[in-house]
Amino acid sequence: MDIAKVVGSITSVSKIEQLKPVKLFVVHVLDGDFQNSGKYIVAVDTIGVGYGDLVLITTGSAAKMTEITKEIPTDTSIVARMDGLEGEK
Amino acid sequence: MDIAKVVGSITSVSKIEQLKPVKLFVVHVLDGDFQNSGKYIVAVDTIGVGYGDLVLITTGSAAKMTEITKEIPTDTSIVARMDGLEGEK
Amino acid sequence: MDIAKVVGSITSVSKIEQLKPVKLFVVHVLDGDFQNSGKYIVAVDTIGVGYGDLVLITTGSAAKMTEITKEIPTDTSIVARMDGLEGEK
Amino acid sequence: MDIAKVVGSITSVSKIEQLKPVKLFVVHVLDGDFQNSGKYIVAVDTIGVGYGDLVLITTGSAAKMTEITKEIPTDTSIVARMDGLEGEK
Amino acid sequence: MDIAKVVGSITSVSKIEQLKPVKLFVVHVLDGDFQNSGKYIVAVDTIGVGYGDLVLITTGSAAKMTEITKEIPTDTSIVARMDGLEGEK
Repeated sequence: MDIAKVVGSITSVSKIEQLKPVKLFVVHVLDGDFQNSGKYIVAVDTIGVGYGDLVLITTGSAAKMTEITKEIPTDTSIVARMDGLEGEK
Repeated sequence: MDIAKVVGSITSVSKIEQLKPVKLFVVHVLDGDFQNSGKYIVAVDTIGVGYGDLVLITTGSAAKMTEITKEIPTDTSIVARMDGLEGEK
Repeated sequence: MDIAKVVGSITSVSKIEQLKPVKLFVVHVLDGDFQNSGKYIVAVDTIGVGYGDLVLITTGSAAKMTEITKEIPTDTSIVARMDGLEGEK
Repeated sequence: MDIAKVVGSITSVSKIEQLKPVKLFVVHVLDGDFQNSGKYIVAVDTIGVGYGDLVLITTGSAAKMTEITKEIPTDTSIVARMDGLEGEK
Repeated sequence: MDIAKVVGSITSVSKIEQLKPVKLFVVHVLDGDFQNSGKYIVAVDTIGVGYGDLVLITTGSAAKMTEITKEIPTDTSIVARMDGLEGEK
């Protein structure tokens, strides 16, 4: 999983049926120093996030392993809000 | 998912049976500033797009989770047209 | 999927049983300008290609979704020969 | 799999149910010279690790193939502690 | 698949049960000119290799499609020894 920051949301009228019930957020992936890595991803929200939140995103087949995303063709989902970081870092 | 721009389509006579009914588009993946990232991908269309459209592409096993692509060996599918972007960005 | 050029083939005596019936080609992945991107991949052929052909390769679990590759532990398969490109590009 | 060093752990209150029972560690992926590659990942622990440990991480669908992670939407899991390296390197 | 060179093996006491019966090798991924690309991976051996061998590695879900690896949480497996390369390259 990667640590990312929620920065926007996508407006889309034409999309496949499965994507219609979910909210699509644009997140910036953070690097090891919690700075913007320059990489963004569009992710399905599964927990209820807002702009500016630090979140964990999961990718690949894992992105479809939540109650909300199991029928949704997403390759990236937001699965946790990050409240803090402990350790040596 | 990534945001991409539809720029072309592939003509192919020799291809496996499963790919014959679908339309293959060349898309340029956009970076965080909506500029061409220099990366292109060939994607199966599932919604009916045209050249110049901004779209969302999904990759990996998710690319096969639509009605149109479920039997198709694609690693990338176009699943939404992007109409706008809201938020902090 | 990516556009690639077939440049060689692999000779291998010691390999797992599943790989024995298939032909393994070395392909160079092309960039957005149809130049060699510097990245090569070894791919299983599913359509009958030759050196110099421009082809489409599919990766990940999709690489195993053809009649020829469904029991083969490959992460990349050649699924179409590219005859042309239309559009804005 | 990649070799990584455990450097921290994530504190999170809002997360999907499946992630609640597991411990999430921040690991730094090491390069070929056992130096920090600059890339970090958040991984689920399956063996009981501590800060500073050198570990092996597995990614993609393999990350869900352990007793602990089989129902968990993780794309990266810690599956071994590395005790040594033999060979030409 | 990628072409890689076997350069070492991992010693590990603490690992999940599924990894105990297999041998874990460190391989260096080679670039298009058969030079070390600077990228290494830890791979499960399925054919019996030794240090210095040139091998093919497969990644992702394909890495678990061999008799030896089908229950093993690996994202990379060695599936062939490379004996030669023919073609334009």
